Amino acid sequence: MKIEQRYILPPGFRSAGVHAGIKSDATRRDMTLVVSDSPAAAAGVFTRNQVKAAPVKLDMERISSGVGRAIIANSGNANACTGEPGLLDARRMATLTAQATGLDEADIYVFSTGSIGVPLPMTTIASGIEMLAAQLSPNDLHAPVGILTSDTFEKTATTTVLIDGQSVRLSAMAKGAGMIEPNMATMLCFLMTDAAVESPALQAALNTATGSSFNRISIDGDMSTNDSVMVLANGRAGNAALNPAHPDWPVFLEALKALTLHLALRIVADGEGTSKIITLHVEGACNDNDADLSARAIANSLLVKTAWAGDYPVWSRIMDVLGYAGPEIDEAKINIFIDDLPIAQGGLNAGTSREEVLAVTRESSYSIRVDLGLGSGKAVLYTADCTEEYVRLNMF
Amino acid sequence: MKIEQRYILPPGFRSAGVHAGIKSDATRRDMTLVVSDSPAAAAGVFTRNQVKAAPVKLDMERISSGVGRAIIANSGNANACTGEPGLLDARRMATLTAQATGLDEADIYVFSTGSIGVPLPMTTIASGIEMLAAQLSPNDLHAPVGILTSDTFEKTATTTVLIDGQSVRLSAMAKGAGMIEPNMATMLCFLMTDAAVESPALQAALNTATGSSFNRISIDGDMSTNDSVMVLANGRAGNAALNPAHPDWPVFLEALKALTLHLALRIVADGEGTSKIITLHVEGACNDNDADLSARAIANSLLVKTAWAGDYPVWSRIMDVLGYAGPEIDEAKINIFIDDLPIAQGGLNAGTSREEVLAVTRESSYSIRVDLGLGSGKAVLYTADCTEEYVRLNMF
Repeated sequence: MKIEQRYILPPGFRSAGVHAGIKSDATRRDMTLVVSDSPAAAAGVFTRNQVKAAPVKLDMERISSGVGRAIIANSGNANACTGEPGLLDARRMATLTAQATGLDEADIYVFSTGSIGVPLPMTTIASGIEMLAAQLSPNDLHAPVGILTSDTFEKTATTTVLIDGQSVRLSAMAKGAGMIEPNMATMLCFLMTDAAVESPALQAALNTATGSSFNRISIDGDMSTNDSVMVLANGRAGNAALNPAHPDWPVFLEALKALTLHLALRIVADGEGTSKIITLHVEGACNDNDADLSARAIANSLLVKTAWAGDYPVWSRIMDVLGYAGPEIDEAKINIFIDDLPIAQGGLNAGTSREEVLAVTRESSYSIRVDLGLGSGKAVLYTADCTEEYVRLNMF
Repeated sequence: MKIEQRYILPPGFRSAGVHAGIKSDATRRDMTLVVSDSPAAAAGVFTRNQVKAAPVKLDMERISSGVGRAIIANSGNANACTGEPGLLDARRMATLTAQATGLDEADIYVFSTGSIGVPLPMTTIASGIEMLAAQLSPNDLHAPVGILTSDTFEKTATTTVLIDGQSVRLSAMAKGAGMIEPNMATMLCFLMTDAAVESPALQAALNTATGSSFNRISIDGDMSTNDSVMVLANGRAGNAALNPAHPDWPVFLEALKALTLHLALRIVADGEGTSKIITLHVEGACNDNDADLSARAIANSLLVKTAWAGDYPVWSRIMDVLGYAGPEIDEAKINIFIDDLPIAQGGLNAGTSREEVLAVTRESSYSIRVDLGLGSGKAVLYTADCTEEYVRLNMF
């Protein structure tokens, strides 16, 4: 399956992205609207942070209907830690969007990303919604830009697959950058497809895809108040509605997984102040959960992450983390590799020369594989280093 | 009780600190020896990291005797992740010290701090032990220097208290700097006293003192392989041996707590690349454990720590952390203060002006108090910011 880094709406969708004025820089778009021209199956995955942004609370209520028509989003303001007024503002965003598009308010999902604890500028939001509704187009290219915050590039992906013998498109946009961590960070991802999918099956597919993509990335270990992944499937392709019994279900599921993984990796690549992408494999754990705990502890260790920034991924710092990560270990059974080079064997220095290691680690991405030597549990995390620039970017 | 930042050995102790050659810079001492002229009660607290340095494994076996005569330590090499040869080297350090001092090997405790995964240079160690034994003095000033690694200043403290109506001295040296985290980091602390203390009582007192000092500090959240706190009480003061039934037990315990807290705070103040010391109080939690979990999550959040470096301790980042720290919260009940200034009230921006906040946070130390508004659980952590310099120092 070929993933293209482009934004092509599936049939029956229109979108727009505008500068409403939430961001002070007039050249930066800050609002996005996506509309399905017919009722669509809807599914969503939301942050597990107890402090949830107002729009997340709203969407979590609405998603139980399993249907949706539109996504309205703003960047520059997260509408989080804004109390009861924030909830009213989120509802008002949906109401205004319903009025501007003629859709039912209950079918509109609201997303915000940006600064926390600041009231939404509702006059600006209202005028932005008017502009968006006026500019909706099936050929729009701006929607993926309207959701960006400190991202340095757009994150889009599209692919087509054959379902019931006919071509079906899946497209997605995402934003990431700061505060990216294991359990979904300040990240948004909207997926659109013209496939017909039964709602419960769509939710199950999204859970699976998110579990192997956005929940496998870690930049700084923090977990945001606004993380949301949302999918709309409008059925324009006319296929027999997909569910796990459909012969082409695996095709659809793999496409969803491939798109979300692609975007997750693009988010890591654009992490604030990161210079290296590390694919971290932990294997040989007693079980998958142990492997996951160990991987997350490694990916969240400041000493490990700063060592990655410095080209030399000191094996002993990883050993140190494995010792406090939680899962039981046997120091003498641990092997660690950088790509295929052993850097620790049996818990000791493997003796690989610094030059050999540097030949790998000077690249902008490489893998680290930790074999605990205890069982068959394994986990993978896509993570990054911690640079001086990361600190500089997040000081203010 | 007055704590002096000086190194004054209690009666019946001698020490020395030399440059043996483990560190390449000939002006830096790298070995320390402390000897009690008579058998002493001994107690120790050691890292909970599963990956323990060789000397820690040795000491943990020996401490069950409850007695000791000498402390031999080196800096520049941690003798961790060194396998069976490392264990033999640690034992050899004790054997050589026994030979040089005429003491029983079983009464000698060994400590190492520095690089992990590198074999100890035993020829250098052996000559260092010879030098140390020759230079032992009751008036020594060099022992506290021999254990330092990236520390930028010596950490010493001494005090006297009245026990059974007579003056008793407690003295201590410590080292800290990198890898300092909640459950004891690459930190060493040696305490000496001429008080007579029963061994089990001494261990209990050390557990209590460590729990409210070294286990309440956090710099980078990593936990070292070598952390050790050791106390020797040689009884030269001639008091009735202290235990919890002794009327002056509280006096001794408070002195031990005061010394260890003083040194713990000095370690935070000297954390690698830190510019602010933050005293973090979490209160109003459902229980003390919840308060502790929340405090540690805040103190280990990269986004919070970088905000501290930037003078403005963004309240919303603390809210975000509280949402994923684990303990249940009620967003609307959370109040956050910087010293006495409210920065969040009921989970919302408290409206205190940026100028008022900056007037406090421009100081090199201040407190942050988080009130969860749920119960009476509380915890305190002494922590620090994360600066660009931290990253620079730990990249290589």
